[in-house]
Amino acid sequence: MSKGTLYIVSAPSGAGKSSLINALLETNPTYDMKVSVSHTTRGMRPGEEHGVHYNFVSVEEFTDLVEQGAFLEHAEVFGNYYGTSRLWIEEQLNKGIDVFLDIDWQGARQIRKLMPAAKSIFILPPSKEELERRLNTRGQDSETVIARRMQEARSEISHFDEYDYVIVNDDFDVALIDFKAIIRAERLKQDKQAAKYKSMLSALLADQ
Amino acid sequence: MSKGTLYIVSAPSGAGKSSLINALLETNPTYDMKVSVSHTTRGMRPGEEHGVHYNFVSVEEFTDLVEQGAFLEHAEVFGNYYGTSRLWIEEQLNKGIDVFLDIDWQGARQIRKLMPAAKSIFILPPSKEELERRLNTRGQDSETVIARRMQEARSEISHFDEYDYVIVNDDFDVALIDFKAIIRAERLKQDKQAAKYKSMLSALLADQ
Ligand SMILES: Nc1nc2c(ncn2[C@@H]2O[C@H](COP(=O)(O)OP(=O)(O)OP(=O)(O)O)[C@@H](O)[C@H]2O)c(=O)[nH]1
Ligand SMILES: Nc1nc2c(ncn2[C@@H]2O[C@H](COP(=O)(O)OP(=O)(O)OP(=O)(O)O)[C@@H](O)[C@H]2O)c(=O)[nH]1
Repeated sequence: MSKGTLYIVSAPSGAGKSSLINALLETNPTYDMKVSVSHTTRGMRPGEEHGVHYNFVSVEEFTDLVEQGAFLEHAEVFGNYYGTSRLWIEEQLNKGIDVFLDIDWQGARQIRKLMPAAKSIFILPPSKEELERRLNTRGQDSETVIARRMQEARSEISHFDEYDYVIVNDDFDVALIDFKAIIRAERLKQDKQAAKYKSMLSALLADQ
Repeated sequence: MSKGTLYIVSAPSGAGKSSLINALLETNPTYDMKVSVSHTTRGMRPGEEHGVHYNFVSVEEFTDLVEQGAFLEHAEVFGNYYGTSRLWIEEQLNKGIDVFLDIDWQGARQIRKLMPAAKSIFILPPSKEELERRLNTRGQDSETVIARRMQEARSEISHFDEYDYVIVNDDFDVALIDFKAIIRAERLKQDKQAAKYKSMLSALLADQ
């Protein structure tokens, strides 16, 4: 059995990253894919659950975890701290499970350095207008708030060219097929297949 | 528009390579994929057509073409010469068309050196027994002939680890889905997408 693949998935808010990851995992009945739950210092939002969406911690707890070396990577994103637990991820990968990290470009850079075998995917909205519409679904944000969120989105998007793959999320179903094709293709890479079909290959290459 | 991708597809005889390539192209209505037709010095078989399966030439004509530099790569495969035309391929790639080369491991090595952006796929039979069965469909070959074909197959298979992707052709439909996933994923690579969505990206990254 070969190790699982670590996938870094980044996107500006409003690109539909979380929906794509959720849809991918839901349609996968074999439990060979999991999403990492990060730690964050930002406040819990309505509908969010501790341990499911994030592990919500105080700044002090976060700092302690950093000092203990508990994080594979961590970063400040628009005023809050976020970090990826090291131990759990290594356990999953060793079990052959693919792990998805929903992290920003700063975290992506740290992971790429530490784990060069990780694959990174950037998800883009189809247009500026659509992004603005998606960021403004509540319809009651002030112009200043929307301008700030657009600026944050632009800042994240400016790093799209550091990623291995780019998906444009215009039609959700098409974007999901793209996402699945990437995972499927990565599992067909020579080293993964050589590990998976070790005994078949020995037999094929045996002298008689 | 970005350039097309050059795909090298190799397999031992009996792995189902030609059927997979044909099925891929048939289900692709957009004419953005083509197979290269090689030159060969081997005799035409019943059912084969000049210019469709191969360009059938004499050893003398082949040698002339080699001297004219007409081939991107050429090799002797089990006693016959085979070569890939240079000009046609470059034209297709420049038009953004993906080109598939059905060539052996020796040709694959030459192409990888010349065109490092090429992607290579190796197709494996699911077992030695099945390979033997497929090589022996006519049921009237002598043991010596079958032993020789198995030896040739083993020799080709021994190079599987030089390829980017490996597909095991057990269930044909599954292998075809694998094949399609690889092409789809490669088209989602960052550089391809950046070229395809150039103006959308400029708009997303524009200051206002
Ligand atoms: N570096 C890093 N970034 C993280 C981590 N967890 C989340 N992020 C990123 O932090 C940003 C903000 O995430 P959230 O607080 O969930 O806010 P949001 O605007 O709802 O983000 P979306 O869910 O992407 O729409 C996103 O870009 C996440 O990808 C982490 O562990 N490390
Ligand atoms: N290097 C190189 N190899 C080629 C070329 N064209 C065909 N080949 C390879 O030559 C081998 C023999 O091909 P064929 O003469 O068609 O014989 P075959 O046993 O029917 O092969 P399959 O069609 O693969 O079953 C195969 O491995 C082909 O991939 C070429 O232009 N260059």
